[in-house]
Amino acid sequence: MYSNLSLGALGLTADFPTALELAAKHGFGGLDPDVGYLRSLGGTTEVQRVAAEVADRGLRWGMAGLPVNFTATAEEFSTQLAALPDHIELLVAAGVRSVGTWIRPMDEDLPYRRNWLRHAGRLALVAEILAGAGLRLGLEYIGPKTFWSTERFPFIHSLAEARELIAETGADNIGLILDTYHWYTAGESVADLRSLSVSDIVAVDINDAPADRERDSQQDLDRRLPGTTGVIDLQGFMSVLRDLDYDGPVKVEPFMKSLAERPIDDVLSEVSGQLDRAID
Amino acid sequence: MYSNLSLGALGLTADFPTALELAAKHGFGGLDPDVGYLRSLGGTTEVQRVAAEVADRGLRWGMAGLPVNFTATAEEFSTQLAALPDHIELLVAAGVRSVGTWIRPMDEDLPYRRNWLRHAGRLALVAEILAGAGLRLGLEYIGPKTFWSTERFPFIHSLAEARELIAETGADNIGLILDTYHWYTAGESVADLRSLSVSDIVAVDINDAPADRERDSQQDLDRRLPGTTGVIDLQGFMSVLRDLDYDGPVKVEPFMKSLAERPIDDVLSEVSGQLDRAID
Amino acid sequence: MYSNLSLGALGLTADFPTALELAAKHGFGGLDPDVGYLRSLGGTTEVQRVAAEVADRGLRWGMAGLPVNFTATAEEFSTQLAALPDHIELLVAAGVRSVGTWIRPMDEDLPYRRNWLRHAGRLALVAEILAGAGLRLGLEYIGPKTFWSTERFPFIHSLAEARELIAETGADNIGLILDTYHWYTAGESVADLRSLSVSDIVAVDINDAPADRERDSQQDLDRRLPGTTGVIDLQGFMSVLRDLDYDGPVKVEPFMKSLAERPIDDVLSEVSGQLDRAID
Amino acid sequence: MYSNLSLGALGLTADFPTALELAAKHGFGGLDPDVGYLRSLGGTTEVQRVAAEVADRGLRWGMAGLPVNFTATAEEFSTQLAALPDHIELLVAAGVRSVGTWIRPMDEDLPYRRNWLRHAGRLALVAEILAGAGLRLGLEYIGPKTFWSTERFPFIHSLAEARELIAETGADNIGLILDTYHWYTAGESVADLRSLSVSDIVAVDINDAPADRERDSQQDLDRRLPGTTGVIDLQGFMSVLRDLDYDGPVKVEPFMKSLAERPIDDVLSEVSGQLDRAID
Repeated sequence: MYSNLSLGALGLTADFPTALELAAKHGFGGLDPDVGYLRSLGGTTEVQRVAAEVADRGLRWGMAGLPVNFTATAEEFSTQLAALPDHIELLVAAGVRSVGTWIRPMDEDLPYRRNWLRHAGRLALVAEILAGAGLRLGLEYIGPKTFWSTERFPFIHSLAEARELIAETGADNIGLILDTYHWYTAGESVADLRSLSVSDIVAVDINDAPADRERDSQQDLDRRLPGTTGVIDLQGFMSVLRDLDYDGPVKVEPFMKSLAERPIDDVLSEVSGQLDRAID
Repeated sequence: MYSNLSLGALGLTADFPTALELAAKHGFGGLDPDVGYLRSLGGTTEVQRVAAEVADRGLRWGMAGLPVNFTATAEEFSTQLAALPDHIELLVAAGVRSVGTWIRPMDEDLPYRRNWLRHAGRLALVAEILAGAGLRLGLEYIGPKTFWSTERFPFIHSLAEARELIAETGADNIGLILDTYHWYTAGESVADLRSLSVSDIVAVDINDAPADRERDSQQDLDRRLPGTTGVIDLQGFMSVLRDLDYDGPVKVEPFMKSLAERPIDDVLSEVSGQLDRAID
Repeated sequence: MYSNLSLGALGLTADFPTALELAAKHGFGGLDPDVGYLRSLGGTTEVQRVAAEVADRGLRWGMAGLPVNFTATAEEFSTQLAALPDHIELLVAAGVRSVGTWIRPMDEDLPYRRNWLRHAGRLALVAEILAGAGLRLGLEYIGPKTFWSTERFPFIHSLAEARELIAETGADNIGLILDTYHWYTAGESVADLRSLSVSDIVAVDINDAPADRERDSQQDLDRRLPGTTGVIDLQGFMSVLRDLDYDGPVKVEPFMKSLAERPIDDVLSEVSGQLDRAID
Repeated sequence: MYSNLSLGALGLTADFPTALELAAKHGFGGLDPDVGYLRSLGGTTEVQRVAAEVADRGLRWGMAGLPVNFTATAEEFSTQLAALPDHIELLVAAGVRSVGTWIRPMDEDLPYRRNWLRHAGRLALVAEILAGAGLRLGLEYIGPKTFWSTERFPFIHSLAEARELIAETGADNIGLILDTYHWYTAGESVADLRSLSVSDIVAVDINDAPADRERDSQQDLDRRLPGTTGVIDLQGFMSVLRDLDYDGPVKVEPFMKSLAERPIDDVLSEVSGQLDRAID
């Protein structure tokens, strides 16, 4: 596995060339693609040149976002789906291997099984189109009860449910985005991870949780940098990835606004170190 | 429809002959069977004599409980299922027409779809056995969020989900126990009831809710007598039943411990009046 | 209900103005829209003028085809879905109320439940887009065993399954295209139809079956004109529609190549009479 | 893996002591338990003595039958389920590790999904009870089209479907009984087997098919001894088992009445040799 720089997940912004400099400077193993930037290059040759530059700096790609919303209206989803091949073309030209999104863990109107059908049906379409281009799709489940209990109908909010949804689609290019924060807030254990195969995992996020709240009171958008509070069993989590020989990206996504107020080099130096310590 | 005396649902206790006296004295239209009492009579002839006495007093039967637990271990469920025919025989001898139970709206271990399979599979078995004796099964969904959000995996807690579960079993002798309290706490409206057919309803409970709590803070075991706080739209609810020509039992189930501290005749006189006003 | 002229379903071809003349001349109550013709008119005003002409001749619209293939690849389906709003616009301008398609009753690769997910997921998308324009979708199940048993995995081939699929989508603008031929070959009875509501039916086809074959040997593409062999209980079928006050189109779809070899006026005169006798 | 003597599967009968002699004499690696015989012994001590004798002869147990019918009425199923613990007690005393049954691949009345619910719901109950005693359940899918197409609603008749059913139950003590004959008639390949884990397989049957019929015309009850016609790719099938280090029983089940007309020693000598050649 390799540490991955995702400025967006840190609440930071920079243009792609700057991000590339920063990733190299601070010793990350990879960085997220910036599809807007790739598109602005105006052609496959230019995209391939940037991809070569990334490789030359010793960096790998992280994961791109999926520009499709599984809970949109049918009209919107249809438009997003029709636009997907164009997006995919850019990713393939750049050599990106996976895209990712998350599952909204509740709905005000759709009971569980109806929401399941909506997700499974739409996922199957998206996955088949991605598969045609050799791309994998990572799905992230969201664990905090303070989030999934806020509308009338809770939905997928655990590893077991996310795996069941993936199986239901019949697609073999969908896997999980595992996040320590969701694993912890969902009340899951190392044993729950032990049944995974390495092919079940597309990407990994590691975060910690504030120490002054109970598990069921944790907030989705108030996390901590990995290993800083010790609330979450980072060691146990990483030991499973090591045993599986997981080879993909590992990033942080702490939703801490304070990071944007600090010098960016300080933040990235700290984060890169935390990722390296977790990975080793 | 008719007002139904269920002492248990009021938190009161009395032997069956006393309950029968009280039901007649306070003008109820029916009363719940007491299966323990029926069994103690020692034979079909005696059971039929009691049933005749109920009819002679102008009373109809309410609903019996279902002595089967859908969330028990397979071993326990198997034992309960095997004992069901014996129980049914008593009910049939007495002329009882329906049994009822409720759906536990969450589970600590089973995600929604696995719990769904457990319920649907077991329900189908129970319903087929009941159907062989001409009995209907009433299922009650439980609405309060303060209840369904207390374990890792919320389960059925709305009218739409309960109807879907019933449809899934393929049984035509399962219907709903509608309770104003669950209808209100589930955030449902008169429009949600309008799509029901009369054959979808096996029994009805009417209750009100404390006025000093928001809907999502209501507690399953702290309700009020129907029409006393005005929190729940009892009129709208009953108008649907009237339009459907619903002909079954209507009872209250307020979970108010204070009732047991008052003279029983006072309580039953009040409740009977409340039911009559709601029904008319 | 009204007799509906569908030249395509008779294996005949004519341009729309001719079809309109023929429908009026032979006393049909309606005729199928010709979307290619409507598109060729070049504008909403012209489309509305044609629609007014249809109405002036005392005719109603039958059903348009659905230009979406539920078993296409995801890419093709996505393209068809994105093109649907344009198609719908024409239909709405013309005042057409429903579109229809059929369910392929087997698949060489997808087992039943995976095919179910494919259909349910795609149907839900199509139905939501149609609903936004006030259009209904009619689905026809295909009954002959000589068809559904020809690939590795049989799929929906009965009324019960088609109704279950429609319920699964959660859409309230999907209904059935009932065809006597499929009803007969599926081994269904008048009792099976009795549980339908009128809102469950979008369109009706009536056909008869050759008298020299057993039910399980009937061929999907070798049928007879309605009431001509007496193999199928047309009376029983139509009595249900009458009791339901069904108000939609009724057409024939015999797949008899011989019809194209006869004078078109002879054929339409015969068919119109058969439809009238069945409807009365 | 080991060759297993199942006289019943050969259409032969003998009391258990004779079967034990024959298994040892002809060099089988195991033999099926005879539950009626075990019961007749009258006690755990006697059962354990017989089990010790089997082990002393160098033999292992094959698989016992499951005395539960998944397509019985609810009443019958309930009675069979309640009797299961008693049956299990005998098997556990004897050291038997697995029981098995097959899935009826069609139904005259229940469409696929309703039959699926019936099977999944009942399987989950049976598997949980077996799991409590440490027993595994083997499920066999039935492949011939001449069988699954004989009633109105085909059901599970492929490896993919059987695996999906097992996953649906959520039980981790259910696996497959793989039979070359069903694998062949279902149109499956070595690639289909490659995705299996060894824990997915509980038992294995090997048979060949008559050479004078097409695959879709093969009859479930007219097979051939393994390796005798070469119609079925026995080598490819066994190579997967070897690569998986499959360690369970392998038997033949040819449904050839002619076997009962030959001297039993001739038959067993031939079968034992065929099994040994396939296993090596």
